[in-house]
Amino acid sequence: MSEEPGFAGACVAVVGLGLMGGSLAGALATRQACRQVVGVSRRPETLRTALERGWIHHGTTDLIEGTAQADVVVLATPPRVVLRQLREIGPHLQAGTLVMDLASTKAQVLRAMEGLPACVQPLGGHPMCGKEQAGIEAAQPDLFAGRPFILSPLPRTSAGALEQGKALVRAVGAVPVVLDAADHDRMVAWVSHLPHTVALSLMGAAMAGAQQDPGLWSLAASGFRDTTRLAASDPDMMLDIFLTNQENILRAMNVFREQFDKLYALIEAGDEAPLRECIEAASRRRRELNL
Amino acid sequence: MSEEPGFAGACVAVVGLGLMGGSLAGALATRQACRQVVGVSRRPETLRTALERGWIHHGTTDLIEGTAQADVVVLATPPRVVLRQLREIGPHLQAGTLVMDLASTKAQVLRAMEGLPACVQPLGGHPMCGKEQAGIEAAQPDLFAGRPFILSPLPRTSAGALEQGKALVRAVGAVPVVLDAADHDRMVAWVSHLPHTVALSLMGAAMAGAQQDPGLWSLAASGFRDTTRLAASDPDMMLDIFLTNQENILRAMNVFREQFDKLYALIEAGDEAPLRECIEAASRRRRELNL
Repeated sequence: MSEEPGFAGACVAVVGLGLMGGSLAGALATRQACRQVVGVSRRPETLRTALERGWIHHGTTDLIEGTAQADVVVLATPPRVVLRQLREIGPHLQAGTLVMDLASTKAQVLRAMEGLPACVQPLGGHPMCGKEQAGIEAAQPDLFAGRPFILSPLPRTSAGALEQGKALVRAVGAVPVVLDAADHDRMVAWVSHLPHTVALSLMGAAMAGAQQDPGLWSLAASGFRDTTRLAASDPDMMLDIFLTNQENILRAMNVFREQFDKLYALIEAGDEAPLRECIEAASRRRRELNL
Repeated sequence: MSEEPGFAGACVAVVGLGLMGGSLAGALATRQACRQVVGVSRRPETLRTALERGWIHHGTTDLIEGTAQADVVVLATPPRVVLRQLREIGPHLQAGTLVMDLASTKAQVLRAMEGLPACVQPLGGHPMCGKEQAGIEAAQPDLFAGRPFILSPLPRTSAGALEQGKALVRAVGAVPVVLDAADHDRMVAWVSHLPHTVALSLMGAAMAGAQQDPGLWSLAASGFRDTTRLAASDPDMMLDIFLTNQENILRAMNVFREQFDKLYALIEAGDEAPLRECIEAASRRRRELNL
């Protein structure tokens, strides 16, 4: 990290050592990206696991103790826990501390960051990666490699603090993308939050179908597996996402329903030409995407 | 295949050497499961590829020539092409020939198989595996390994013909599951056809969102990739599925919409307890599934 001055000497406190926080701590520590990684977790066994793996240098269950001396604090907890923790740690932070989060929605978090003392630097963050497993057992230090990592500054965020945030993002192997919180929340509603609602509803529908035909589960192949994978995500995280990005998600859901109803009407009519056109437009675009 | 008498000496004609037919021919030939594999394709270059890979012993673009001398005929074409080919090959088949298909819907195919001459043996088939790529380039002889492979006999299908079908299924590494055509179509509507409609609609919604925010594609991560994967499936196949299993698909779509609307209402109300309950029920069931 010699090319990123101001970060190599930092003490980074990671609050929450689940999939995201555990992976971030692991990436920082194993890449020796900063001077010290302090882990904060409610559960002592999580701290033990993180210490054993060499992902943190020091662990504590005390939020204030763990963050008060840090140069960088990363809150890696669900969106609504982040809101609470920002209120709790604010008064105890050192002047100049960079306070980041990794939550899946940004507007509410950034509003809460406005309430931080003027002497600390707020910066929203959201790494665009994940998997349906939760907890430190699912964490892996290469989780961020090559992935976009959104950074959302406030007007009060200094240029230096934004650079420090970028340095942290690069240090874990990700690609920094600066994006306004409102833009972020509007865009991820389409590509992340809407897919969660769809996966949950698809599971709900199959569960209804299984009441008549319990054997249908044995016929579920890779298509069903992939389309419903997001439904297995952490319920707390999904709940917080839905409750902190309601407006954008509801708008995306309305557009999805229009598309779904259009497809329903075309299948019902059995009119081949317009049905083919509808299928081919979506199919072509999907194959063009380099996912 | 010495433990499966009546199959090792067979000449198997595979009609259509795409993802499914190519993989099946490849599995039969490379496992030396039968005496001869004859490939039938409209495109000479597909036959050349199959011959070069050792997946067929003989290839022809002539449907009648390729099937007239076979002991087993497997139609590996889209559902509505299967319907047409059954009419075309029927009068030319040898007495005792086993006629199978691999189409994703079974009721219409089985009705068409009723029209085959009394001297041949009809048996519907549907291997529960697949991927979004099409064509022989995507084919792989291990595609069926360990997967359920539905077999749907007609009342007129002899026990010996069903056993021969099971032998073929086992010969390609799959697990035979005997299922009535109507039951099959009702069940796969939930776990395969409905997910296709959902993936297409999700792509349609994101395309609408991208008109305002073209940058959203760069934020699409593994969740979006997996949830929309089925939208990249072969349009011809999707069209044929939708048009040959309309009633079951429309019913499943209606139930999906109920689930989706319920989730919408819960997010809109922002009422945490029932929203959490809805999320947790689907999430718990999804994690229980061994997919």
